Amino acid sequence: MSLTKRLGWGLLLAPLAACAPAYNSLVPVPPPANPPAGMQYLYGSGEGAAISAQAWNALLTYVSVRVKARPADSVVLADGASLAAPRFVPCGDKPLAAVFDVDETVMLNTGYEYHDAKTGRGFDAAAWDAWEKTGEGAVGPVPGADRGLAALRGLGVTVIFNTNRSAANADATVRAIKAAGLGDAVHGQTLYLRGDDAMGSRKDGRRATIAARFCVIAMGGDQLGDFSDLFNAGQGVAARRAATLQPPVAGLWGHGWFVLPNPVYGSGLKGGFDDVFPMDKRWAPPAQGEK
Amino acid sequence: MSLTKRLGWGLLLAPLAACAPAYNSLVPVPPPANPPAGMQYLYGSGEGAAISAQAWNALLTYVSVRVKARPADSVVLADGASLAAPRFVPCGDKPLAAVFDVDETVMLNTGYEYHDAKTGRGFDAAAWDAWEKTGEGAVGPVPGADRGLAALRGLGVTVIFNTNRSAANADATVRAIKAAGLGDAVHGQTLYLRGDDAMGSRKDGRRATIAARFCVIAMGGDQLGDFSDLFNAGQGVAARRAATLQPPVAGLWGHGWFVLPNPVYGSGLKGGFDDVFPMDKRWAPPAQGEK
Repeated sequence: MSLTKRLGWGLLLAPLAACAPAYNSLVPVPPPANPPAGMQYLYGSGEGAAISAQAWNALLTYVSVRVKARPADSVVLADGASLAAPRFVPCGDKPLAAVFDVDETVMLNTGYEYHDAKTGRGFDAAAWDAWEKTGEGAVGPVPGADRGLAALRGLGVTVIFNTNRSAANADATVRAIKAAGLGDAVHGQTLYLRGDDAMGSRKDGRRATIAARFCVIAMGGDQLGDFSDLFNAGQGVAARRAATLQPPVAGLWGHGWFVLPNPVYGSGLKGGFDDVFPMDKRWAPPAQGEK
Repeated sequence: MSLTKRLGWGLLLAPLAACAPAYNSLVPVPPPANPPAGMQYLYGSGEGAAISAQAWNALLTYVSVRVKARPADSVVLADGASLAAPRFVPCGDKPLAAVFDVDETVMLNTGYEYHDAKTGRGFDAAAWDAWEKTGEGAVGPVPGADRGLAALRGLGVTVIFNTNRSAANADATVRAIKAAGLGDAVHGQTLYLRGDDAMGSRKDGRRATIAARFCVIAMGGDQLGDFSDLFNAGQGVAARRAATLQPPVAGLWGHGWFVLPNPVYGSGLKGGFDDVFPMDKRWAPPAQGEK
């Protein structure tokens, strides 16, 4: 974009300068002064790095034990299981594997999020597709993931990626995974993509395919759909949160199912005031009276 | 606030209705349609609940081992230690303890954040002080913390809170901790507050006092200052993040130091574009050319 065009827009939009970035706006707006809080946390902060490293450290501790004492069951839910009464795919004598989402689980999409934050236009499917195709120079590992995946492979555990990146961009995604320091991936063997089956972005089918071949001893993701599609069955926001905290599912977090932080995008960023703040947990300063 | 006054403000501010909430604004603005993304994640999402439960599950696994095989050293840094070459306070024969921040580590300040989100005015010290004094009816446990603290006590580990809530509000904070299902706290014994010493909001002095009496086998917090003041020694954003990932500190996350998520407020939400997005990790869609 030319300097003249930039200045032109700047003058035209000066009255909006007091506004926060107009996400999903149809007109360009001046870039925000700083990245959104969620991006500061995830891509810039020590706190975000530490909680990511913590998940990877906990995963390695957990897997080290499982490698020595092979479990009877995989951590992939069996067909027909429910969250209230989960059953898991048996391991048999299948080789050990760990299954991970890619974006914001093992790989930070730093370059794309820079573009997103600078333009302030919110998610753009065409830009994301271009990113999948050309982003390999501007990715990095989630803190701890590069070392973690290498350690898993050293323990004899096959690392498998199950991502909603497009099967049409398989080769570019293999290159991006490699460029982020996350090792090798082979489509159909250690890399599963959206389009590999008829289930769209739902991952249960791909998980079943993987669990038929491997004893999956750990899964990692930043979205609940990285563990089971049952979390995305149309529940309300509060019911979906409650489902994560109901035994026995509550006991799986950090013990087979490993969550990475993502306050930037995805299924966690939903809900109005009534969803997020229960009526019995509201407050206003006494001097101002109750709202 | 009367209905007339609400309507009056609404009409007056109608031209601003297209704007996102004007945080830190000096005039009231209409409430935003939804809570900010960070609050949706932390207070409403299954992802936020799961990553919190994961930290508590990992902590209990870690502590169970340490209780059986008592460590030589506490996880509290010794006076004069550095992050690059950490040394820890020796345990001697002191009784076992675990030390936790309170806000967004063991307790969710749901009521205050509801007020914050509804008013959209950002942090307000007077409102926070009123919250410390009167909020006990609108708090809850961080997912997993209530069960986690009870389990620690069951293992014979003393639970100690080290918070920057004001010593002037000690009694109200004891009530809030109890109301959130987090058990009993006694100021000066199992509860340390800002104002207990001359170090203000820096916690190293209080940690030293605790580690002189107890063998601290685990610490938990949502801010890096909950682990060491050395993380807040004036480093730049990128250097501070790098300090969390440098060995041997990198190995402490999930192994003695346990991080809870907080993309809503605090020292993790800092940084401009140059801090958060390194120059070599920037990207723009090829068709638009490089920015």
